[in-house]
Amino acid sequence: MLEINIPEVVAEVTTAFARYEQALVTNDVAVLDALFWDSPHTLRFGATENLYGYAAIQAFRAGRSAAGLAREIFNTVITTYGRDMATANTEFRRAGNPRTGRQSQTWMRTPEGWRVVAAHVSLIG
Amino acid sequence: MLEINIPEVVAEVTTAFARYEQALVTNDVAVLDALFWDSPHTLRFGATENLYGYAAIQAFRAGRSAAGLAREIFNTVITTYGRDMATANTEFRRAGNPRTGRQSQTWMRTPEGWRVVAAHVSLIG
Repeated sequence: MLEINIPEVVAEVTTAFARYEQALVTNDVAVLDALFWDSPHTLRFGATENLYGYAAIQAFRAGRSAAGLAREIFNTVITTYGRDMATANTEFRRAGNPRTGRQSQTWMRTPEGWRVVAAHVSLIG
Repeated sequence: MLEINIPEVVAEVTTAFARYEQALVTNDVAVLDALFWDSPHTLRFGATENLYGYAAIQAFRAGRSAAGLAREIFNTVITTYGRDMATANTEFRRAGNPRTGRQSQTWMRTPEGWRVVAAHVSLIG
């Protein structure tokens, strides 16, 4: 079976995840785009939209308002499977919004670095 | 890079996904339990709950009402990464509920077969 949570792999994915989080709260679209896998297989279920393929995700980022993206994250769990795959799951809260968010990402190592291949974001509560 | 969508791997995961779907709509708790990875790393963000670890997921299944689980699924996308990892994403609709659901799963090959290592279910609309 794939080896779970090889420390140096966890460290790599943790760095990629933190880079994504920083880009998200600052609406750094170039970095957000760079961290998703450039493939028609990539998908992102967002809080209010279902995006199939890298091009659809990129178009969504380009059109998104930069307002109100700040958030705090908690209960973050990063798990790696072998050397090339990982999941990153976290809960989050935005100022002034009582609902808790959940963000799930599956990451893959590519020749260019770690990339999100599938993501799902939703609110509960 | 990992090879994407090796046909026999896609076929295996498609079978596992279908088995999960059948178990879900019939509330076959034994099969649902069997198809999740028995690990403290496993997590499931549900429509109304966040479950960390296999034991929490198992307890949720055991206490869940079997009523109203029937659904139709559409826009299902299964993608495999190498021979040991996969994602399965689908939208779904339940009779009498106007909201669209989204279900995301990350699967891993284990010595016992394919298992869900992380899942996220939510409703929009």
